[in-house]
Amino acid sequence: MLGSTHGTLTTDSRRARVIACGEQPAPAVHGRPAEPGDLDVSGRPLYGEVPDLDRFFRPESLAVIGASDAEGRPNAGITRRLVDWAERVGARVHPVHPSRPSVFGVPCLASVAELPEQVDLAVLLVADPLPVIEELAEAKVRFAVVFASGFAETGEEGAAAQARLADAVERSGTRLLGPNTNLNAFERFRDDLDGPAIALITQSGHQGRPVFALQELGVRLSHWAPTGNEADLETADFISYFAERPEVGAIACYVEGLKDGRAFLLAADRAARRGVPVVAVKVGRTETGARTAASHTGKLTGADAVVDAAMRQYGVIRVDGLDELQDTAALLARARPPRADGVVVYSISGGTGAHFADLAAEAGLRLPELSRAKQDELHRWIPAYLGVANPVDNGGHPVGDHRGRKIIDALLDDPSVGVLICPVTGPFPPLSDRLVRDLVDAAERTDKLVCVVWGSPVGTEPAYREVLLGSSRVATFRTVANCITAVRAYLDHHRFVSGYRSPFDEAPRTPSPSSRKARALMRQGRRLSEHAAKQLLRAYGIRVPREQLVTSAAAAVRAAGLVGYPVVMKASGARIAHKTELGLVKVGLTSASQVRDTYRELTDIARREDLTLDGVLVCQMVERGVEMVVGATHDELFGPTVTVGLGGVLVEVLRDTAVRVPPFGEEQARAMCAELRGRALLDGVRGRPPADLDALVEVVLRVQRMVLELGDDLAELDINPLVVLPRGQGAVALDALVVCR
Amino acid sequence: MLGSTHGTLTTDSRRARVIACGEQPAPAVHGRPAEPGDLDVSGRPLYGEVPDLDRFFRPESLAVIGASDAEGRPNAGITRRLVDWAERVGARVHPVHPSRPSVFGVPCLASVAELPEQVDLAVLLVADPLPVIEELAEAKVRFAVVFASGFAETGEEGAAAQARLADAVERSGTRLLGPNTNLNAFERFRDDLDGPAIALITQSGHQGRPVFALQELGVRLSHWAPTGNEADLETADFISYFAERPEVGAIACYVEGLKDGRAFLLAADRAARRGVPVVAVKVGRTETGARTAASHTGKLTGADAVVDAAMRQYGVIRVDGLDELQDTAALLARARPPRADGVVVYSISGGTGAHFADLAAEAGLRLPELSRAKQDELHRWIPAYLGVANPVDNGGHPVGDHRGRKIIDALLDDPSVGVLICPVTGPFPPLSDRLVRDLVDAAERTDKLVCVVWGSPVGTEPAYREVLLGSSRVATFRTVANCITAVRAYLDHHRFVSGYRSPFDEAPRTPSPSSRKARALMRQGRRLSEHAAKQLLRAYGIRVPREQLVTSAAAAVRAAGLVGYPVVMKASGARIAHKTELGLVKVGLTSASQVRDTYRELTDIARREDLTLDGVLVCQMVERGVEMVVGATHDELFGPTVTVGLGGVLVEVLRDTAVRVPPFGEEQARAMCAELRGRALLDGVRGRPPADLDALVEVVLRVQRMVLELGDDLAELDINPLVVLPRGQGAVALDALVVCR
Repeated sequence: MLGSTHGTLTTDSRRARVIACGEQPAPAVHGRPAEPGDLDVSGRPLYGEVPDLDRFFRPESLAVIGASDAEGRPNAGITRRLVDWAERVGARVHPVHPSRPSVFGVPCLASVAELPEQVDLAVLLVADPLPVIEELAEAKVRFAVVFASGFAETGEEGAAAQARLADAVERSGTRLLGPNTNLNAFERFRDDLDGPAIALITQSGHQGRPVFALQELGVRLSHWAPTGNEADLETADFISYFAERPEVGAIACYVEGLKDGRAFLLAADRAARRGVPVVAVKVGRTETGARTAASHTGKLTGADAVVDAAMRQYGVIRVDGLDELQDTAALLARARPPRADGVVVYSISGGTGAHFADLAAEAGLRLPELSRAKQDELHRWIPAYLGVANPVDNGGHPVGDHRGRKIIDALLDDPSVGVLICPVTGPFPPLSDRLVRDLVDAAERTDKLVCVVWGSPVGTEPAYREVLLGSSRVATFRTVANCITAVRAYLDHHRFVSGYRSPFDEAPRTPSPSSRKARALMRQGRRLSEHAAKQLLRAYGIRVPREQLVTSAAAAVRAAGLVGYPVVMKASGARIAHKTELGLVKVGLTSASQVRDTYRELTDIARREDLTLDGVLVCQMVERGVEMVVGATHDELFGPTVTVGLGGVLVEVLRDTAVRVPPFGEEQARAMCAELRGRALLDGVRGRPPADLDALVEVVLRVQRMVLELGDDLAELDINPLVVLPRGQGAVALDALVVCR
Repeated sequence: MLGSTHGTLTTDSRRARVIACGEQPAPAVHGRPAEPGDLDVSGRPLYGEVPDLDRFFRPESLAVIGASDAEGRPNAGITRRLVDWAERVGARVHPVHPSRPSVFGVPCLASVAELPEQVDLAVLLVADPLPVIEELAEAKVRFAVVFASGFAETGEEGAAAQARLADAVERSGTRLLGPNTNLNAFERFRDDLDGPAIALITQSGHQGRPVFALQELGVRLSHWAPTGNEADLETADFISYFAERPEVGAIACYVEGLKDGRAFLLAADRAARRGVPVVAVKVGRTETGARTAASHTGKLTGADAVVDAAMRQYGVIRVDGLDELQDTAALLARARPPRADGVVVYSISGGTGAHFADLAAEAGLRLPELSRAKQDELHRWIPAYLGVANPVDNGGHPVGDHRGRKIIDALLDDPSVGVLICPVTGPFPPLSDRLVRDLVDAAERTDKLVCVVWGSPVGTEPAYREVLLGSSRVATFRTVANCITAVRAYLDHHRFVSGYRSPFDEAPRTPSPSSRKARALMRQGRRLSEHAAKQLLRAYGIRVPREQLVTSAAAAVRAAGLVGYPVVMKASGARIAHKTELGLVKVGLTSASQVRDTYRELTDIARREDLTLDGVLVCQMVERGVEMVVGATHDELFGPTVTVGLGGVLVEVLRDTAVRVPPFGEEQARAMCAELRGRALLDGVRGRPPADLDALVEVVLRVQRMVLELGDDLAELDINPLVVLPRGQGAVALDALVVCR
């Protein structure tokens, strides 16, 4: 029954395999800004290219392939709108059609080959774009847009057609938008609006429509990229490009899926470096993740949790509703950086202030209590019986005269205040009209953010339509919830970018010495034995108990003497799960006779359960600590991910885990621990000492290094439990599961 | 060091105190509908009176005390509005002023005593209403409204003035609204709108304004009760009254604090019995909010988790934003009961359908897959390549012609569909105008709920303003989130009321035999010893380990023989906390010598720590099970509450607990266990057997009985841990803390 996958151990080698604590130094980091072509140690790019899309959005010449002006044909409508658009942006138009002499009065070319110049942009209105792509390549057309549908969105056959199209595009040198896209890039953008704009990226035209309609409320839009099936140009390309455009204040995205997770992260990284906020709706909250975690502890995170974490790592603001997308993007595009993170709530009603403060505090906004001096100043205009500590309740009347503006200015003048929010719950024109005019005037004269919540469901009031929407300096909302969401995103964004360091600059690019040792332990397509898995951890400097793998009762007794009593004994084998439940783990053995008996007991159970052992582990007993789990899985979108969570039975029951997508730095490893619901266990409860958080963070970082270096060869890794000892005493991996691909 | 609070035990009595499992039968329930005056065993009312407020809202005669028509005086404006209102509702007006001959042409009376008839309603515009109240009593005025402020909302002095006012009112026989209220009850209500109406109750006029403004969007409002400081008439009175009014479809409340928690629950119970939905914003999610609200109207806000639970027990729908309050109340007021709980999402874009379905599923709505036959039917009008399983994507074009209506009718005709939701993300008049007209027409001809989300931020489109808002049969929303919130509340409400049984009918009214035994154990103002606390539990039939309290080592050995080895030994005393941390609990003692040694060890520790013991407990070892906590605390608003949670260190770290306000039935006790995040522990994980959930539920109900019967004498109760054994084996309280008031 005792087989051996790793060969029988000699007595000599055994002593050497009594494993001490991890002594491997922490892997070095680089810190050189990533450049084009740089790859990390897993072979993934560290630099995202920025396509030059100037001539896509503002072409000097436009070809319409399949142009038509035959009444009632869909292509005629599209051609008409393209011709009008070309006129607006000043592009020369070249309609192409094999048989029409002219289209809307413009002479038609019979084929792409006849184009009289190197065209910037060709829009393909043909059912089968594939043959045209090669012609475009020969004509050195810079950009193409393919409207045709029937590709990857329709199933396998369509996906194959799309792959052929993508191949042709890659060979051609022409960059392509689509297929299955639409006219959104060529809409009518208002050019009478000033200030920073929203650039919009959508994977569904209908879903972008409300953001685009913000123009009608005075919010400037600069671009709209309807990415369709993304056979070539993808969401990430547009994020990167927009992040570099001076007129873009915020990027708003509606995303259903990502073509390339890494490209998305590199684009988000570029936006973060440049301080350009990215606000995104990402569909997929309820898709159960496709990851099948091994039977050891069950799956730790769903794929949506990974998307969520990846976005947060790069400061992408994820929202759920299109209304939140609009309100948050509009605020972030237009507001200047905050000069303080304090929020003051100002209203004409104590109820409104209390309600708003309640919801704002719950969302994590900070409402500092105003200083005594400031409160005294406010009471020059506000009756003494009203509360002005923050929220500030003016009781109504002061807004109707000169006092209203003085109060607003006094609030904006306070150094603790970065944001002034005035919820106007119910409009009462004699007061609220003057109030919003004062707010608009004050906002024009301050760098600080002024927000108004126009709470009336009617929304036709002139104070709202004309005064508030007429100002680009006041951020106007229709609901308290959206105001709070947007203001929180605004403060979070500026806090995030001000402390941002790109993890790509610091990601490892060359293998560490550990990786050679580790690779020697990997067994393709196999699950490693516990003993081998722990050797892998040790190669990366992760501490494991002193232990010995033995294949006889006598050797077990000798091993116990070497690791030191009391000992733990465990059956070891490549295919054994649920050891504890099967009775294959025995703890607290204090004598040679107990060790001898236990050896027999374990092999008996293995025989009865028909399990193949590679031996029995005799392990050092580790002191009590906090049981955690650290693991790695493979996400279909982002590749390897690292997870930390509470250990033991809790993993399965509470799923209290945090996940990150490599590369990430120490601050993210700390943030992972901090976001666990049960994090207080690490602080020490019921008189227990605080756990060695630094050691836990170090294990997380070493696991990251391991998954990056072993790359796709490592299908799954789970350290469970990792016992985190009291502060200063480290962390020990008591058991580990490793599955090789 | 060994003192004794309970007297020294004789050898004889010891044997009797070897406590066996709880054998007390479950307390009987009554089940007779509660009647006026009925009290439960704790002395709390089981029946809530319904004040007759017909003459308040529709008086035949109105007195205005302090009436004025002097230009520029606030009272003149108010008087004017009251006179106009009286005219609209057909009430005779009697202005009262000591010196004016007439007001707005109506002859003035010099005092209340001169009133020519028994007036229904008197509005007091005087600064000090107290003297007037007695005059009103003599004149037998039915209702009074006091606008004056400066009462409980201003602090202690004001609270005392309010108490004097409340006393005067109670003696007078006149019912009073206010003080610190306003004109909201006398607003202009549209009388051209049909169907069920919203009745509105607010503790802040400004905060009620947007709900009232729904009239401008075609939603009928029937009443508005601005309750102010609630010296007499309170929120609960208006809920009870509105629940009985045939024209009221839903009650919308803005609540900052409650005057009387029990009265609120009785009112909510009345509404639940009558199937009238109550939708409420309740300020107090955070301490900031609670503090600010308390200073606004001077009421108690209560612990928010308790408020939340209490509302859910009676089906009150709690929302956070005024926009949610509007949308949810409007839907619930107007929609007919659902005929199925399936939701179908229908849109002109696959993206919109996917996004909506994602958010709807996350919120717990059920989107059933449509039958094959229904899908085939839909494909008669919708191209074959579009998905129609649910969400249904029509691709756009079919809504532009006769197919649009056929699709809608086919969806509404499906028996699995109770709700049809059509998100119109971006209006495109050639399609969307016809789409919404078809939806409105179809909605007029079905009992099923039809919802539209008008996603455009602009909101001036005729299809929205005229077509959608013109229909009371289509529920129109501006955001997906509010639509989902409201539809969920709608389905939840009807599910709740259809299975509702009032807990007040079944609440215990007379003490059980247990309570006599229990009261004998209580010690006023004291914390009981563990042993006494367990006796209290046992009096209520809650199982505790066999155990004996001993005061000598020799007695300990005898006791161990009686309870049976192995035993647990614990120091026992009234003031000992953290026994485990102090080393005052020893488990797994298997021999007389261990017991003897342990006795000495425990008393040594007690001496060292200067603790007074009443003895040492020798207890039966209990098998392993799931450690839970069951407890009771006192809420300032609702009185005693019962809590259940995960036990052990987890209680402190994760605060995974559920709370209920008595009285509640078995189904609520089960719901408490079901809402724990860690509930899966009870199902059995890692091969452990499922725990005895019935026994846990029974303990929760017995604790409820205990807190009801011991009433305010019981300051605190905590059973921690309660070990829930495998199914069929019960639950055992291993330790308990009892503090008497």
